[in-house]
Amino acid sequence: MSNSSKEIPYKIYLEENEMPTQWYNVRADMKKKPAPLLNPGTLKPMTFADLQPVFCDELVKQELDDTHAYIDIPQEIREFYKMYRPSPLVRAYCLEKKLGTPAKIYYKFEGNNTSGSHKLNSAIAQAYYAKKQGLKGVTTETGAGQWGTALSMACSYFDLDCKVYMVKVSYEQKPFRREVMRTYGASVTPSPSEHTAVGRKILQEHPGTSGSLGCAISEAVETATSLEGYRYVLGSVLSQVLLHQTVIGLEAKAALEKYNIQPDIIIGCAGGGSNLGGLISPFMGEKLRGEKDYKFIAVEPASCPSLTRGKYAYDFCDTGKVCPLAKMYTLGSGFIPSANHAGGLRYHGMSSILSELYDQGLMEARSVEQTEVFEAAEQFARVEGILPAPESSHAIRVAIDEALKCKETGEEKTIVFGLTGTGYFDMTAYQKYNDGDMSDYIPTDADLQVGFDGIPKFPGNEF
Amino acid sequence: MSNSSKEIPYKIYLEENEMPTQWYNVRADMKKKPAPLLNPGTLKPMTFADLQPVFCDELVKQELDDTHAYIDIPQEIREFYKMYRPSPLVRAYCLEKKLGTPAKIYYKFEGNNTSGSHKLNSAIAQAYYAKKQGLKGVTTETGAGQWGTALSMACSYFDLDCKVYMVKVSYEQKPFRREVMRTYGASVTPSPSEHTAVGRKILQEHPGTSGSLGCAISEAVETATSLEGYRYVLGSVLSQVLLHQTVIGLEAKAALEKYNIQPDIIIGCAGGGSNLGGLISPFMGEKLRGEKDYKFIAVEPASCPSLTRGKYAYDFCDTGKVCPLAKMYTLGSGFIPSANHAGGLRYHGMSSILSELYDQGLMEARSVEQTEVFEAAEQFARVEGILPAPESSHAIRVAIDEALKCKETGEEKTIVFGLTGTGYFDMTAYQKYNDGDMSDYIPTDADLQVGFDGIPKFPGNEF
Repeated sequence: MSNSSKEIPYKIYLEENEMPTQWYNVRADMKKKPAPLLNPGTLKPMTFADLQPVFCDELVKQELDDTHAYIDIPQEIREFYKMYRPSPLVRAYCLEKKLGTPAKIYYKFEGNNTSGSHKLNSAIAQAYYAKKQGLKGVTTETGAGQWGTALSMACSYFDLDCKVYMVKVSYEQKPFRREVMRTYGASVTPSPSEHTAVGRKILQEHPGTSGSLGCAISEAVETATSLEGYRYVLGSVLSQVLLHQTVIGLEAKAALEKYNIQPDIIIGCAGGGSNLGGLISPFMGEKLRGEKDYKFIAVEPASCPSLTRGKYAYDFCDTGKVCPLAKMYTLGSGFIPSANHAGGLRYHGMSSILSELYDQGLMEARSVEQTEVFEAAEQFARVEGILPAPESSHAIRVAIDEALKCKETGEEKTIVFGLTGTGYFDMTAYQKYNDGDMSDYIPTDADLQVGFDGIPKFPGNEF
Repeated sequence: MSNSSKEIPYKIYLEENEMPTQWYNVRADMKKKPAPLLNPGTLKPMTFADLQPVFCDELVKQELDDTHAYIDIPQEIREFYKMYRPSPLVRAYCLEKKLGTPAKIYYKFEGNNTSGSHKLNSAIAQAYYAKKQGLKGVTTETGAGQWGTALSMACSYFDLDCKVYMVKVSYEQKPFRREVMRTYGASVTPSPSEHTAVGRKILQEHPGTSGSLGCAISEAVETATSLEGYRYVLGSVLSQVLLHQTVIGLEAKAALEKYNIQPDIIIGCAGGGSNLGGLISPFMGEKLRGEKDYKFIAVEPASCPSLTRGKYAYDFCDTGKVCPLAKMYTLGSGFIPSANHAGGLRYHGMSSILSELYDQGLMEARSVEQTEVFEAAEQFARVEGILPAPESSHAIRVAIDEALKCKETGEEKTIVFGLTGTGYFDMTAYQKYNDGDMSDYIPTDADLQVGFDGIPKFPGNEF
């Protein structure tokens, strides 16, 4: 479907003056809007006042705004973006050749920054608004450490204090990510810790616990709300985060248009949904407005299949149940993916924007198994030269599958996927794959039922 | 001294059609040439026939060629370069602001590829010539693993077998680099090993040894020369490697000229010299031809000060004394830097091209201590967003020092330095720095004398 007159380079870089100056808010173009966040006490929509003690004022506004299609990117954020953006849109010539496919494959590569992923796009925005509000610092949680690293970099740039609660098992097993955060001046605390009431309580009840993301969130929120001049920030799921991540899709779209390339299929991996949402939003806008059509595919691990096997219902965003209720495809806030699952994309729910788009049939979803994901990662690394993050490799898997379908049918489809980051801090998982010790895990219906049983029940929340 | 009409972006990217099509051989413009390699048995210059059993034919030609100024980059290599090049020339606006200097600072960033450094520029060339010669594979040694990673990537691309001997202590302590190499299909053997006669001999004499680079070189050379269809390849020091690395300097020069920027000072870290030589060669050519003048600064660790405290003499290139003799600034092939030294730049000698240029007074050298290097690394990371490799941070240190001198004098000098790579696999050293456990070490004259005593003595090799 692509119709290019110019020769297409390996990497399309926009000029700095072609970079987006506004984020795109896809909610504005949705006829049926995503369901609002609910106050878990009153079951009423969360208001500005409800959210203000936890999040920065400007971010609360963005979270609640489903009417303005374009939101200005402040000049200071645009300056920071210029240090590592525009990111390249890469034509995967070598992968195409290796596969022998008539398909044309492109990927938007977000890994060329020290955080190693797209997370920095929202981290810098959230740090900026915290600074502008005159805050002293922010708190957050991190699992593997990608988000924590991105936030540390952003806070260091704006001279903000950054307190990261890192799940204890990761703190001990992944010391390198921890040291990157410390190099950027963040304080990194293994969670559960003695710093918070909730941490002390958990340590008393489970003295040898290695922690969980749910517990780390609870500690970060408690710290933010109890310290003067602090707020809590989150790296995915929230609509504000998807908004910031649209810089990915806007750049990709501008780069494609520059070379008159029309994608047929757009693919992204989906954990909480921020990368996928950011990539597809501008294209989805065209689809919603009836201007163009695209096939969108969300790819999730078979071991954590929120879209493909979850329920569409109001649920807690965190295991600790301190956050608001969001309507989303969910496996239940008590769902914990098998320990055999490597890498991220372990979140039990999904962005409420993407959940609603999926529910309306505007986007497809596919689940893939772990070993086939690493097979794709290895194949990609060997021909394209980039060692992909396990998360990103979910998208690679489906991009390769779609390209191989084209080989069978002879169709010259144009495939675009998001390569969210690099796997340099994931070599333990690669080693498992290299050693032949990696296995697959698909939860049974009974396994999933345990999570579903924890989804709150109230009138209007039938599933 | 810069005089730019256009506004200078944060990152200057050349177009793919502006990338160099030829490497530049600085030896052609040197009136007094670097001294030839000598056969250690006969003390006569090494001939094509002497080198042919060890290296690929085309690479031997390049090694011996000191007359042709430009050598075509084969199309296949240029295609590979397009996957990760052109690399950006970055204006360090944020660092300048932080330092409050009137100096203008630029860096050529070579870290945006999975090998994490500039090493890939030569690895792909060496793999290409091996493939073209119809070889089955290549062998090499690696210490920390940067070169081994680059070579694995290159061999995977050309479907060549790649045998890497990795110093045993690194093999065990740096499993992540090892796994990257394995992901690219290389076989990685801890050295000393039972695979070679020299390995077996060393293991018999020193059963518990953790290996050394010298021993790994000997094993790699033995394997290459005893297997049908294999050759040995090396990642630095040799003139062929400097030649391939001139792609760095040629791109940097083209980017600077595009914006009418005239550098005053060009800085690079120096271990074996390939990155520094590659960066400065095209500029040095102008200086040699009397067209322009620049100040060049080679930066080395105070713990391994080959240029600043070494002897200019013929010496062995490897600890095992199996390689030819090269005339270079050397600490003696028996010199081993203190264990307290982090990162690379541990080589006892220096490229014979750079040694000769230094000896002629065309280049300066400076040695810096470890903790001040990591201070510079941290400062740079926090404002420029890139976590630099410890090696690259030597250049950052001196770039910052020069910029601070400009702050004192008010001079608006233009400084260009080479940022050779990222520090993602060096977090153990960063942790030491973060914990305040890093210390400096400067060898005494007596320490150095031990190494000097091992430099071979023969007529014409007085020092």
